[in-house]
Amino acid sequence: MHVYIDKITNEHVDKEITIKGWLYNKRSSGKIHFLELRDGTGLIQAIAGITDVGEEIFEEIKKITQESSVIVTGKVSKHPKKENFYELVATKVELVSLAQEYPISKKEHGPDFLLDNRHLWLRSKRQMAIMRIRHTIVKACRDFFDNRGYTLFDSPILTGNACEGTTTLFETDYFGQPAYLSQSGQLYGEAGAFALGKIYVFGPTFRAEKSKTRRHLTEFWMIEPEVAYLELEGIMELAEDFLSYLVERVLDKNKVELEIIERDFKKLEGIAPPFPRISYTEAVEILRKEGINFEWGGDFGAPDETIISGKFDKPVMVHRFPTEIKAFYMKRDPKNEKVVLGVDVLAPEGYGEIIGGAQREDNLDFLLERIEEHKLPREIFEWYLDLRKYGSVPHGGFGMGLERAVTWICGLQHLRETIPFPRMLQRLYP
Amino acid sequence: MHVYIDKITNEHVDKEITIKGWLYNKRSSGKIHFLELRDGTGLIQAIAGITDVGEEIFEEIKKITQESSVIVTGKVSKHPKKENFYELVATKVELVSLAQEYPISKKEHGPDFLLDNRHLWLRSKRQMAIMRIRHTIVKACRDFFDNRGYTLFDSPILTGNACEGTTTLFETDYFGQPAYLSQSGQLYGEAGAFALGKIYVFGPTFRAEKSKTRRHLTEFWMIEPEVAYLELEGIMELAEDFLSYLVERVLDKNKVELEIIERDFKKLEGIAPPFPRISYTEAVEILRKEGINFEWGGDFGAPDETIISGKFDKPVMVHRFPTEIKAFYMKRDPKNEKVVLGVDVLAPEGYGEIIGGAQREDNLDFLLERIEEHKLPREIFEWYLDLRKYGSVPHGGFGMGLERAVTWICGLQHLRETIPFPRMLQRLYP
Repeated sequence: MHVYIDKITNEHVDKEITIKGWLYNKRSSGKIHFLELRDGTGLIQAIAGITDVGEEIFEEIKKITQESSVIVTGKVSKHPKKENFYELVATKVELVSLAQEYPISKKEHGPDFLLDNRHLWLRSKRQMAIMRIRHTIVKACRDFFDNRGYTLFDSPILTGNACEGTTTLFETDYFGQPAYLSQSGQLYGEAGAFALGKIYVFGPTFRAEKSKTRRHLTEFWMIEPEVAYLELEGIMELAEDFLSYLVERVLDKNKVELEIIERDFKKLEGIAPPFPRISYTEAVEILRKEGINFEWGGDFGAPDETIISGKFDKPVMVHRFPTEIKAFYMKRDPKNEKVVLGVDVLAPEGYGEIIGGAQREDNLDFLLERIEEHKLPREIFEWYLDLRKYGSVPHGGFGMGLERAVTWICGLQHLRETIPFPRMLQRLYP
Repeated sequence: MHVYIDKITNEHVDKEITIKGWLYNKRSSGKIHFLELRDGTGLIQAIAGITDVGEEIFEEIKKITQESSVIVTGKVSKHPKKENFYELVATKVELVSLAQEYPISKKEHGPDFLLDNRHLWLRSKRQMAIMRIRHTIVKACRDFFDNRGYTLFDSPILTGNACEGTTTLFETDYFGQPAYLSQSGQLYGEAGAFALGKIYVFGPTFRAEKSKTRRHLTEFWMIEPEVAYLELEGIMELAEDFLSYLVERVLDKNKVELEIIERDFKKLEGIAPPFPRISYTEAVEILRKEGINFEWGGDFGAPDETIISGKFDKPVMVHRFPTEIKAFYMKRDPKNEKVVLGVDVLAPEGYGEIIGGAQREDNLDFLLERIEEHKLPREIFEWYLDLRKYGSVPHGGFGMGLERAVTWICGLQHLRETIPFPRMLQRLYP
């Protein structure tokens, strides 16, 4: 009976099962081979003694190379020391396909070599653990909004709109006219919120940025809730509930994986509402107290974000940024036109911005003013302006970069490990 | 207290609540206005009598136009006739924003007009119902695989590979080199299955096809499971379990929406395993019996699919297509090299193909042969060939076009209503 490794329980003990997988590792001592098998759901040790498998199979096993595919049948036994761990006493080992010499060895490889072999690198314990945590986080994102009555709203990837200049857009020829790959589903999400009340967009987004930092991918996934009748205060509450839910879910589902990647999960255990809230102006004061000569009105760089978020154990919400440095669609604070009702959430441990959100400008005239100030072509926004002509309401939402959230929750150095096939400057293969 | 319409229960009866939404419809009779309100989660009738709201508000309501945003407070009462329906006896009606004359009236509009106003058209009962069913289906897709231990595997959208010629690919400049928008995540999914055992890819895919039929979008979502050690028989079982699960979920969650779009859901109630399975050769015989002069070896057109699927009340699985007309990666049947171990699932009621699947060629030499036969450039497949060098196993999966499935389950005429902002030939706006 074929059983997946993660489905082996006490009920299988002393019963014969079959594992279909690959040889992850092998060591031999005299008349016993110890085979570490993987099947994608977990790892298990199979003990193949010459008396159990017979001399012929025993000799054949000697030739089986790392990552060869094998089908192993044997009796399940409990691990002598570890709780909930099992071993297999093999009675039959069948080679499916002998692997050529595997390029990824136990020695250290450089990142370029590993990325060139991303299709194989994914088979390592560490990469599989990260993929599973990514899966948990994606599912938690969707569950969070589904449970609150939001409707999924898949915004288009191909658009005729070049919202904010074309320099960071990927362009393609759409049957004779230029089209651009979406950088955000937000504007479409607003149309969705005016129809369905509460929606979320969740899909890939694209930035043709030449930045070569550990925080940038050219292709990444973004989740973007948008809600009618939601104002800045509510957006901040939503963001803190949301991030806390993601962390809680990973702690609940992925302790094993967090151990494999050596994440200090004590640092995640305190992530719960409320998160600290400070204004941009207060954030500037924090920087100045640290001796940084920061002028009010500028945008925070990564080092600034590290200092600000370093003051808190939880994600910190920085709100009311200068109008000048934020997008045209953000609503200005009625109490102070110099700032917008926007919020950035900075993750702790120096991970920087993972969420950017705002209440949107809902007044048609003010929005037109902002479009003009930003020197944007009005005609491509006609449909967006319609939302203010036909039943405008206060509304807002935020966007979270999925890979940035995975990087933080996993405690990684670089975004490139958080997505199956990362796309970066000079990295389009495999 | 703000309550969403779909959250109103018997517990709210005789209590005062507030609805934040839009005016969907209005009629007046003497001293009473009947306001049909929508808030994205549902519709409710608010009765605004002059004695309850006062003369001033009563006069103001006269000016409130369709799709104006309004906040209405009132007491909940049970609908006099319908079970689980509620009404609101308004005590306060607050206009948030007066809508200009709404372009979508009750008269019939042509599809181009509606698509030009897609951002507003989405507010109609019918379009909201379809969006909610789409949501249910997406969630069911994910739940189905999540519950079976599959790992989500987001394949890249931007690839350097032009798998099968560039004529139907959207191309973009990737920092000086050509990149193409993905038509399928399958090849990457295979790498995922060899790492994680059972995976599914679920993302947007792109076809630059000039077809202008009701079954084509240039941008559509596809879900693609891929499983190590799964052969054709298992792929067919997975496909029938999967489709049955989707239908069951919609029948469970969306009876109200199915009624709004006037779907005869009796036709969905029998969709359960097993589905009929016929070979391509048997399908050809069906066509010939109908008097169609169909030559063995050709591909089925939409009218052929309609005839074949018309013979069955359930989706029919047509397997073992001619090798010549199928993709290079499909495994040839060891018993008959002229056919591949592929399967197409045709939806009933003439909806045609919604799933295409196959067992993949797992032998390196055979795969190289097929790549040569198809005149494909070997170098872009080096990483893919690696999967056959390092522990190849029998494996397979399928791809389901999400919008085609939604079209069938909703009983629609055209794919364009199944996605928030459809992309078709000459349709890139809004």
